[in-house]
Amino acid sequence: MNRLLADLRIVEFSAFVAAPLGGMTMAQFGAEVIRIDPIGGAIDFNRWPVTGDGASLYWAGLNKAKRSVALALDKPEGRDLARAIATAPGAGGGIVLSNLPPLPGLDYASLKAARDDVILLRLTGNRDGSAAVDYTVNAASGFPLVTGNSGAGGAPVNHVLPAWDIAAGLYLATGLLAAERHRARTGGGQEVTAALSDVMLAAVGHLGYVGDVQINGHARPAIGNDLYGSFGRDFATADGRRIIVIALTPRQWRGLGRATGLGDKLALIGEMFEVDLETETGRYEARDAIAALLGRWCAARTMDEIAARFAGTGVLWGPFQDFVELVASDPRCSAANPLFSAVDQPGIGTYLMPGLPLDFGAVPREPTRPAPRLGEHTEEVLSSVLGLSSTEIGRLHAAGIAASPVSP
Amino acid sequence: MNRLLADLRIVEFSAFVAAPLGGMTMAQFGAEVIRIDPIGGAIDFNRWPVTGDGASLYWAGLNKAKRSVALALDKPEGRDLARAIATAPGAGGGIVLSNLPPLPGLDYASLKAARDDVILLRLTGNRDGSAAVDYTVNAASGFPLVTGNSGAGGAPVNHVLPAWDIAAGLYLATGLLAAERHRARTGGGQEVTAALSDVMLAAVGHLGYVGDVQINGHARPAIGNDLYGSFGRDFATADGRRIIVIALTPRQWRGLGRATGLGDKLALIGEMFEVDLETETGRYEARDAIAALLGRWCAARTMDEIAARFAGTGVLWGPFQDFVELVASDPRCSAANPLFSAVDQPGIGTYLMPGLPLDFGAVPREPTRPAPRLGEHTEEVLSSVLGLSSTEIGRLHAAGIAASPVSP
Repeated sequence: MNRLLADLRIVEFSAFVAAPLGGMTMAQFGAEVIRIDPIGGAIDFNRWPVTGDGASLYWAGLNKAKRSVALALDKPEGRDLARAIATAPGAGGGIVLSNLPPLPGLDYASLKAARDDVILLRLTGNRDGSAAVDYTVNAASGFPLVTGNSGAGGAPVNHVLPAWDIAAGLYLATGLLAAERHRARTGGGQEVTAALSDVMLAAVGHLGYVGDVQINGHARPAIGNDLYGSFGRDFATADGRRIIVIALTPRQWRGLGRATGLGDKLALIGEMFEVDLETETGRYEARDAIAALLGRWCAARTMDEIAARFAGTGVLWGPFQDFVELVASDPRCSAANPLFSAVDQPGIGTYLMPGLPLDFGAVPREPTRPAPRLGEHTEEVLSSVLGLSSTEIGRLHAAGIAASPVSP
Repeated sequence: MNRLLADLRIVEFSAFVAAPLGGMTMAQFGAEVIRIDPIGGAIDFNRWPVTGDGASLYWAGLNKAKRSVALALDKPEGRDLARAIATAPGAGGGIVLSNLPPLPGLDYASLKAARDDVILLRLTGNRDGSAAVDYTVNAASGFPLVTGNSGAGGAPVNHVLPAWDIAAGLYLATGLLAAERHRARTGGGQEVTAALSDVMLAAVGHLGYVGDVQINGHARPAIGNDLYGSFGRDFATADGRRIIVIALTPRQWRGLGRATGLGDKLALIGEMFEVDLETETGRYEARDAIAALLGRWCAARTMDEIAARFAGTGVLWGPFQDFVELVASDPRCSAANPLFSAVDQPGIGTYLMPGLPLDFGAVPREPTRPAPRLGEHTEEVLSSVLGLSSTEIGRLHAAGIAASPVSP
């Protein structure tokens, strides 16, 4: 959290990861981010992981530091209120972020009619508006067929991290700032659109895989945990742990030879395979032989012994750890890391919540703020942003157009 | 490509994915992005995938639309020139992006001494400055032990997409725009730092996995390609293809029952397992039975038959395809998609290159531009940015301080 964007107000109609992450990123920059949900919550309100009581750790995680307004978006009056909030006056207002199909009255034309300089950022599945989600986009990407030892004829292996959604959310954040910069200079708003499948296609292209097919006529194979075109592999230790060892640079490669005492034997592999192990291509070609030698070395030592041998040597390596080990024993995942704050999340309890993974020298980092309860700011926003009276706000609640949390 | 940030000049000292992607994103917004490399190229200059001649499709992919300057960064005179370019006057200049350890004279203090309002964005491996790369950060993240069917005691499965690097690059782009906005308003520059491991930790936290351990005392298991907490799985078709079928919403779930004609049988599964299949939790609990029924249905039909049955039904699904299939037969990965331009990349050939996966209503999309040849803009930048004479530029080349491509 910081206050760099404290003069902006962003209204979000969203679900799941991409737009919520984009909006939360703005909220962690200090922007006022108002997520407007249907009464009862959007489709992601109970998304796993959940607590024993069914409270969503996922929803809390992706909506930190936002304000929550609950309105009957299935009724024209509820949508009119939503549009009024989204297009309320103010130099930093009139910015809308969504990854849901636009509801009547909340499309770009309607928003622009209410505020001429509105900025609407809208993520769709595909460019033509058809549905696609991280899972289907990933299936199309080519990556699941080169993950693990899937490969030709094998079964695909999906990623678990919703990487396309995360990239899309951060592209939305970037696009929002570029569009707001344009508006600040020219006065003009605009609709900004992105498709989740284009986010995937851009990454596949940027990493060279489209060119690989079009220029070389082939694609990289599935090679397990090996590092394509260089040296990297996972190894088992004597005490049943797993580590990854990487040698991207000549310095890392030489460090590995020195730290393990295997330098002379590794050099023999270069001779045997007639490759230059100082090059990434050479190490890739001889990777199985290198791994055989290193694997025996690792298997004879515990994780602690390996850590001691590698310390200060320039070897690039690290342990595999599961989520429990990460949280329980990695000092980076603790309150000692300024990224994290212990936050009391209403309905869930106190746990470590990350802020923005960016530190700005000119503005202090502030503690992470929790996610709102659903509708927590309905009354406040109707009053402060729209200037409605408490009588009118009461009527909207009684009529089922607006909702606030039942318990305080 | 567009021209939204055409008034900015960004100087990049970088390698691999994260900072190059952040810089390229700015270049695709029209910013002048000058990547300064050591003579002969940085450590990523030959990174795979490569062509038969060894030209890197990866380097070309991550440095599109940039200008390239090659200087002897191992010599004080080369670093002095680099600092002068990075801190040259101009309202949109003085922005530096790096994911490499700072060289002497190119750290924040030196840059600030040359230009008081400089903005330096710097990505490190870990917050303490120690080395970490996507592979080691991923090993620590917990994800490889819940990917595929790894799990307890099993072998980890690494992602192939460098997802942490991509997220870090896009965080850098967002941070750059936030810092530039701050400078435009206050006149003040700053150092902005991020750690790749913090990018990972933020995502693990945002998705609820830190809370899952701290609040629930456990972590999600490895469940192959199943969708955690809802229904989604891959299936084989009669013609040897694979598809993914997802039912996140009640609408998608009902559509699946109708499109397959299995609605009544799926309802029996709800009774058998005593769960409400209209809920995500219910579908997750009964997922193996649902998948058994759907799996038999898919295995009896070809991909084309399934596509015909699912068309227009609201079923969320998609084929798995490898990189070759993606490029050869997915219309989204073709010149019909405005995301792509056929670009002649010097030293490689003509192939489809993606632009920015964001479309801005107020500014036109421009064709993607190729990556530079290494040092292609050395002379031009020394002349236009630093105002050096051709005599002086000739001397720098002769002295091995600056380099330009040998062939035109």
